[in-house]
Amino acid sequence: MANLEHTLTEARPMTGGDGPLSYAKNSPFQKGVAERGKLMIIEGIKNKLDFKIFDTSNKFLIADFGCSAGPNTFFGVENIIEAVGIKYRTQNKDSPPLEFQVFFNDLTDNDFNTLFRTLPSYQKYFAAGVPGSFHVRLFPKSSLHIPREVLDCNSPAWNKGSIIQCNEHSEEVAKAFLDQYASDVDTFLTARAQEIVGGGLMVIQSPGRPDGVLMSQTSTGIIFNLFGSCLADLSKMGVIAKEKVDSFNLPLYFATVKELEEIIKKNGYFSIEKLEVWDHAMFRAMKLDPQALCVQFRTISEGLVKMHFGDNMVEEIFNYYVKKLEENYSAYDEVSNHQIEMFILLKRSNNVIINTYISL
Amino acid sequence: MANLEHTLTEARPMTGGDGPLSYAKNSPFQKGVAERGKLMIIEGIKNKLDFKIFDTSNKFLIADFGCSAGPNTFFGVENIIEAVGIKYRTQNKDSPPLEFQVFFNDLTDNDFNTLFRTLPSYQKYFAAGVPGSFHVRLFPKSSLHIPREVLDCNSPAWNKGSIIQCNEHSEEVAKAFLDQYASDVDTFLTARAQEIVGGGLMVIQSPGRPDGVLMSQTSTGIIFNLFGSCLADLSKMGVIAKEKVDSFNLPLYFATVKELEEIIKKNGYFSIEKLEVWDHAMFRAMKLDPQALCVQFRTISEGLVKMHFGDNMVEEIFNYYVKKLEENYSAYDEVSNHQIEMFILLKRSNNVIINTYISL
Repeated sequence: MANLEHTLTEARPMTGGDGPLSYAKNSPFQKGVAERGKLMIIEGIKNKLDFKIFDTSNKFLIADFGCSAGPNTFFGVENIIEAVGIKYRTQNKDSPPLEFQVFFNDLTDNDFNTLFRTLPSYQKYFAAGVPGSFHVRLFPKSSLHIPREVLDCNSPAWNKGSIIQCNEHSEEVAKAFLDQYASDVDTFLTARAQEIVGGGLMVIQSPGRPDGVLMSQTSTGIIFNLFGSCLADLSKMGVIAKEKVDSFNLPLYFATVKELEEIIKKNGYFSIEKLEVWDHAMFRAMKLDPQALCVQFRTISEGLVKMHFGDNMVEEIFNYYVKKLEENYSAYDEVSNHQIEMFILLKRSNNVIINTYISL
Repeated sequence: MANLEHTLTEARPMTGGDGPLSYAKNSPFQKGVAERGKLMIIEGIKNKLDFKIFDTSNKFLIADFGCSAGPNTFFGVENIIEAVGIKYRTQNKDSPPLEFQVFFNDLTDNDFNTLFRTLPSYQKYFAAGVPGSFHVRLFPKSSLHIPREVLDCNSPAWNKGSIIQCNEHSEEVAKAFLDQYASDVDTFLTARAQEIVGGGLMVIQSPGRPDGVLMSQTSTGIIFNLFGSCLADLSKMGVIAKEKVDSFNLPLYFATVKELEEIIKKNGYFSIEKLEVWDHAMFRAMKLDPQALCVQFRTISEGLVKMHFGDNMVEEIFNYYVKKLEENYSAYDEVSNHQIEMFILLKRSNNVIINTYISL
């Protein structure tokens, strides 16, 4: 079922609109993560942003990669603007105030109409939407001051229509997964490196796995694999054709801290200013029941499921999946500390490549 | 029926999508006008654009105001990019090539999803969408090099939900129309003046009327007034309530060349580098039959008609309108030279206000 072939075809973005199954209404976990990412960028702005090294010409450009259309989208942006504003006023007492422009990026199929219509009316920035995959260049050279994004290979924006399943069949397959992941992250960092001004900051946040833990042992791995066995069951029951199941894969690779650091250092365009790791014990308060797990999984996978199996199959598949999750809930429950969340504050190196590493 | 009250509520944008009644499929006249506007900006780039007076940092930003979602949207942009590229290479032989970013602006309710999905795959620029009315600031200070827009008070993007009918009841009403128009154009120019870099170019193109011709004598005036009498008929026939008709107005004011020049000079932020006038005799080849006139009128008015009279009335109203246009076609046919189209190349004055006027 593994498929390592990566194509540049865009994946389906999150379920749009603001209905009960929309991403906008079902992202408490993402909101928790965004909250931490927000704090990191705000601390970064306070401690690491130096207006003296770049000419803002009184404008400050922020990009939000993989923004989707939910309220989380506007969440971090306003706090960044506030923090930058405060820092700017302390360094530039007599200058006129900064003007902010915020670029909301997601895949071309994202629901930008909803995004634009739900922009807060009190917005203190000039807003723009940027369609396209963030695996390629999306902005002119040196045009951004702070890109805010989620390096979450669990999200549709990260995936490019190609699909990796998380059962490591062998060392070799695991290595191939890592190589593909490394190449994707490297391409991503290189694209951003062109776009960000020297001295600009970027926070990346990414789910990961502790050293020695296999993908299939992480809580997300279990949830994904259960979906795989749900499809296998439905195929045996004659509900879905076997070849349809065989040709379907959901993408997933979680790096370890060491792997991700290695990739960033090898890329060389950014210094790691801060790195913070949450183990999933910290998320236990946010732990979801089977129904909620299904809804969350559905918000990120429904587009792909619909495209592959057809509109008419969607309800049946997810109804069966909830049962599967209920039956196997203990497996998920037991391993929920076998997964980590990484937050990394990066600074675009100014001409020279610096690899300062500040650990927590 | 006249209503001079201007609100900042946004008007409905053009009919979206690419169906048979969409703006995308029904804008041959606009395409002809865009063609001339495009030529003017290209000549302007060739003769008036000077890279030496502004720092591009190798990026060049273009904005397309009131872009809608049709193919005309991408039409002018590519030619501008080509012309700027050629000029840049002659002035900067050893520099790396420019990178272009194009901002497509229209009202928040515009169909940006369609716009993004139909972006040419061969695009040689970074694309972004900017939602909002161009009567207010949409970009940070000094961030644009060339805004391309259509100062067409006949278009929904120009109107702000407030509605002016074109029957001049008196000198006084005509004066009030002109004052409102002047104030709108002034606000528009002032917003753009903040956004454009010194030395940046802008072409505005606007329908107008020759000196001494009343709005109600222009071909567009006749078409608009026929729509008014169509509604009055339907009200008499009991199809629509009289108060609904009385509270509905379609916006229209065409300035004379002298009026528009006066407004631009008084505003003071731009020099008029070139001014060209087409009388409507030049459009005779493009003259439309009643059916086509109705389709064209419908693409710009359907949103407002639907909002005001309800979805269920739209077909009946426009079916009756075609009949009205057929019966009164000679009136339209006779006056089709009583309207002009103005093309004005403006240059953002560099610190000092210059009002160089080059007439054709």
